[in-house]
Amino acid sequence: DDQTTTTYDIELIPGDGIGPAVVDAALPLFRAVADDHGLAFDITRRDWGTEYYLEQGEMMPEDGVSRIADADSIFLGAVGHPEVPDHVTLHGLLLPIRKELDQYICKRPNVLFEGIESPLQEYGAGDIDFVVYRENTEGEYADIGGREHRGLDHETAVQSALFTREGTERIVRAAFEAATERDGTLTSVTKSNAQAHSMVFWDDIVEEVREEYPTVTVERLLVDATAMDLIRRPHEFDVVVASNLFGDILTDIGAQITGSMGLAPSGNINPSDDIPSMFEPVHGSAPDIVGDGVANPLATVLSWSMLLEDLGEKTAADALWDAVTNQLADGSAPRTPDLGGDAGTEAVVDDLQSRL
Amino acid sequence: DDQTTTTYDIELIPGDGIGPAVVDAALPLFRAVADDHGLAFDITRRDWGTEYYLEQGEMMPEDGVSRIADADSIFLGAVGHPEVPDHVTLHGLLLPIRKELDQYICKRPNVLFEGIESPLQEYGAGDIDFVVYRENTEGEYADIGGREHRGLDHETAVQSALFTREGTERIVRAAFEAATERDGTLTSVTKSNAQAHSMVFWDDIVEEVREEYPTVTVERLLVDATAMDLIRRPHEFDVVVASNLFGDILTDIGAQITGSMGLAPSGNINPSDDIPSMFEPVHGSAPDIVGDGVANPLATVLSWSMLLEDLGEKTAADALWDAVTNQLADGSAPRTPDLGGDAGTEAVVDDLQSRL
Ligand SMILES: CC(C)[C@H](C(=O)O)[C@@H](O)C(=O)O
Ligand SMILES: CC(C)[C@H](C(=O)O)[C@@H](O)C(=O)O
Repeated sequence: DDQTTTTYDIELIPGDGIGPAVVDAALPLFRAVADDHGLAFDITRRDWGTEYYLEQGEMMPEDGVSRIADADSIFLGAVGHPEVPDHVTLHGLLLPIRKELDQYICKRPNVLFEGIESPLQEYGAGDIDFVVYRENTEGEYADIGGREHRGLDHETAVQSALFTREGTERIVRAAFEAATERDGTLTSVTKSNAQAHSMVFWDDIVEEVREEYPTVTVERLLVDATAMDLIRRPHEFDVVVASNLFGDILTDIGAQITGSMGLAPSGNINPSDDIPSMFEPVHGSAPDIVGDGVANPLATVLSWSMLLEDLGEKTAADALWDAVTNQLADGSAPRTPDLGGDAGTEAVVDDLQSRL
Repeated sequence: DDQTTTTYDIELIPGDGIGPAVVDAALPLFRAVADDHGLAFDITRRDWGTEYYLEQGEMMPEDGVSRIADADSIFLGAVGHPEVPDHVTLHGLLLPIRKELDQYICKRPNVLFEGIESPLQEYGAGDIDFVVYRENTEGEYADIGGREHRGLDHETAVQSALFTREGTERIVRAAFEAATERDGTLTSVTKSNAQAHSMVFWDDIVEEVREEYPTVTVERLLVDATAMDLIRRPHEFDVVVASNLFGDILTDIGAQITGSMGLAPSGNINPSDDIPSMFEPVHGSAPDIVGDGVANPLATVLSWSMLLEDLGEKTAADALWDAVTNQLADGSAPRTPDLGGDAGTEAVVDDLQSRL
């Protein structure tokens, strides 16, 4: 027949710890989905990360970001190693990619799937379904600050959070857009009562941008109250927009109340067509289970689904996402230990393959 | 007999919203406990807060802090008003008192009491019992920063977090002290992987101070992981030490997983004998229930118990604390709506009085 194949250039950084294990196990599944939908992945694998660092003294080559900047998309496994401080590994790989490729939207869906038990008593399948739009390039993660008078009594460290109009407007606008496509409710999270310089600015931007979205209901909530309310009334959240740090904390709570860090996917998105986005499971490198063959691959699979959706391949994306939801809803399907099962990574992927 | 009465000078700031209601309802109880233990309170009431602000243009008189600085202790009800921005009300009253009286320890116990249901499925009475030592005078709440180029495309806001050696060492040391008096485990919370200027400094101070406390087990945890772990494994926490912002977020999670914001007490402590500490319920002014007579007074009662303990009046403190635990454990005792009952503030206080 006249089907043509669309080929996507993917940069793959398996990274540290369980990163390579989950990525390698899941690749055949991704290729199978591609086949089914007339797609192909041209994958360039980058063995960057802490092993690389221990040999080369840097987490990736100096021109690493520009080497991957022409891809259609980027996939990252995990970064972090018990023997190297996190601020070295993260500032050497994950954070520079997010920043230099200006992936200013960190999109993190939080869904309580059928078959998954929430630690919250009152919540069952379908009760939790919100998405966090986290600012991903500035805010409290800005590399601005310093430390003086080392070791002296008046030693002082300063860490400055930076909020620009462009940086704030664009994440707020992306969240409003998302709200128009979902239930029309946006929660903007700040700490304006204590951080009057940055957060009042954020509030002002939200007030400005909301003029463009008259149909969206806006709730302004403090970060401490939000953390509480994600436990007290998670069903009421729809789209949440937050700064880099607040988004980081709230999405970990989101992962936990929806059952497992092993299920939480994420995208670091630059909506421009010329610059690739990067997808990654929210979980870290999990050094404690490396080599055991039991790492949960589902966050990786869901993240790849987000990658496909971002490429415009919605049906392929849905195929992967649906395979995961089917598997979770099936009480007899294999599960990794973090979900209460005793299956290994491979068995979970094989089972997904059979559900495509 | 030869009993003498010890009189304590207490500055009382009922504040906004439900603050006056819970404080006024509970005062007879506090006087009764005092009587029982040969104590008396000489209470100076300050009608500062948002009503005052709406008349006078400031939350308290300009010399407000110095007027209360000679007290033995300070009690605050709540601050915050729907018609005035939080950064005005808080920066006008609560935060300047904490800072100017150098109340550098914010101590917040989190206990799951018998009779209280946690929203976490697996947790019952006694399973959660930790205390947060939150830095209370600097960090992310420092009033350093600004905003430039208003309304222009390159508008920028900066908010700087300030960590001094003195400020960090003393809260860390206070937490280590607490750990030696409890189970000997200290969790130090940072975000060193993303905030390399401030948080690596914090980590270094923890490493220095721990040399003085060889018996304490120290765990270093990232704030996002801590938020998650307070849902996943709250029973494993004992003493938690965190910066101002992180402590704020984590104690709201702590209040929520132990059943209700209406039960969470706190102390803003300056350990010096010459400067008063300030005690306050963690909950806010709750404008939605003002005037309904159903505000939960228990966080206020527990906070007053902390005030007594801080004054060295341990048996009187225990009497109040025990009255609360007895009431909560008694299924037929009155409860306010936030705890699933239909009793009012007064009925709860009267019942406590009968349990003294
Ligand atoms: C590893 C760390 C720097 C990172 C972050 O804080 O952004 C992670 O926690 C995440 O949420 O992606
Ligand atoms: C009201 C607010 C400024 C305050 C804080 O953030 O410290 C409150 O949330 C608290 O925890 O005491």
